[in-house]
Amino acid sequence: MARAILAGGGALPGLLQEAGPAVLVRFEGVPVEAPEAGAIPARFERLGQLFSDLRAAGVDELCLAGSMQRPQFDPALLDAPTRALMPRLVAAMGRGDDHLLGAVVAIFEDEGFAVRGAHEIRPDLLAAEGDLAGAPSEALRRDAARARAVIDALGPLDVGQGAVAAGGQILGVETLQGTDAMLAFVARTAPGSGGVLVKRPKRGQDLRVDMPAIGPDTFGRAAAAGLAGIEVAAGATLLLDRAATLKAAARHGLALWAAP
Amino acid sequence: MARAILAGGGALPGLLQEAGPAVLVRFEGVPVEAPEAGAIPARFERLGQLFSDLRAAGVDELCLAGSMQRPQFDPALLDAPTRALMPRLVAAMGRGDDHLLGAVVAIFEDEGFAVRGAHEIRPDLLAAEGDLAGAPSEALRRDAARARAVIDALGPLDVGQGAVAAGGQILGVETLQGTDAMLAFVARTAPGSGGVLVKRPKRGQDLRVDMPAIGPDTFGRAAAAGLAGIEVAAGATLLLDRAATLKAAARHGLALWAAP
Repeated sequence: MARAILAGGGALPGLLQEAGPAVLVRFEGVPVEAPEAGAIPARFERLGQLFSDLRAAGVDELCLAGSMQRPQFDPALLDAPTRALMPRLVAAMGRGDDHLLGAVVAIFEDEGFAVRGAHEIRPDLLAAEGDLAGAPSEALRRDAARARAVIDALGPLDVGQGAVAAGGQILGVETLQGTDAMLAFVARTAPGSGGVLVKRPKRGQDLRVDMPAIGPDTFGRAAAAGLAGIEVAAGATLLLDRAATLKAAARHGLALWAAP
Repeated sequence: MARAILAGGGALPGLLQEAGPAVLVRFEGVPVEAPEAGAIPARFERLGQLFSDLRAAGVDELCLAGSMQRPQFDPALLDAPTRALMPRLVAAMGRGDDHLLGAVVAIFEDEGFAVRGAHEIRPDLLAAEGDLAGAPSEALRRDAARARAVIDALGPLDVGQGAVAAGGQILGVETLQGTDAMLAFVARTAPGSGGVLVKRPKRGQDLRVDMPAIGPDTFGRAAAAGLAGIEVAAGATLLLDRAATLKAAARHGLALWAAP
């Protein structure tokens, strides 16, 4: 039997392909960096077709990997199975990203596919506890604890996978628009704060489909926002390119550490 | 005996002067719109001098009113009483705005002054429960409930007096930079959402010194952010100029209502 990668943007789909043979599923309108070869083209409106194509390719296990915008559905293109699933998807969409992803996972599981997390396929990408680059000051660790408390408080509401704190104050809380938008906000409204970005999963988040991830680009944006470090969750954050990520941390003079 | 208004920016100090005679305290560097006449000039570094001046003017009751940035202290200018208070102020600053304001209130109370809230002096400025302008859709009320849940979850952490939600999603969480910065963020990153701004005090917030307030300008900024309405907390939000505020709501086509 075979594995399929439902591919989104960024480096992750390619990193999973390095772990062993996998069929790439490319959704119409989703930019994918991984190699084209052998890909199954798909549309969100034609999930029935996708289920058949996956079975025809012998797929029994799949992994959602990479960033994806909330899909747009063109009602004129819906196949019958997708039409039947729409009430479930629409209801989940109204309840936050976690619910939407949870519904998507449940739909594929109902069709008999096992859903795996990227970290199950590439456990070597996970951040282990400890200082990974540089060494944060005690003040920076205290700011991180404050940002962590915000993320934890918002988790039950399916809000916030990230927050920025500096000097005991919260300067940014991640919303639907994502980490990059939050960092741009901090850069604009509180430049030079010397604070910390904390990224961690919401409590109860299904890490198979929405594991926080950082890469070299995150450091450029954090540096532009005037931050001094990044804290991630040990065992629950993917380092998308470890060597390049640590190099970027050093180049920008930012500390990186993973907390329990 | 007499009342003093420790004046910040905006319309509130002037509105309190309309309620009866009061000495205006003007801090160096804080822009104040209210009339000059009879004002006591003050510096944050010279609180000892301010205590004497207030007593000399027969003041026994005071009210902190209007917006103020976190003060800068020039160490060279500190008088002895302020120097003695600095450890208390610095510790409170590190713990969030509520703690800082709480410390300031406690310092004036320790000196024998009664601290009153603006709403005790002008109860007519408080928003009463119900629809104040237009009528929000059911979807908008649901979004407001979601934003309210975020504010309530963050209250114990001394974060967030405001949030923006649209279509079941959180698009903005107020941080140290304030409501206007959050609305500018939403305007830039999620234009045309048709969502709602919710402003309410953090639970446990001392309403004497940090009552949420809205005025006509809030509606221009909410409209620019593509919002369809504003929900405030009944009995815990000041409408700084009721007639102009309701007119601004109508002009921008936004609903305004106060929820319990």
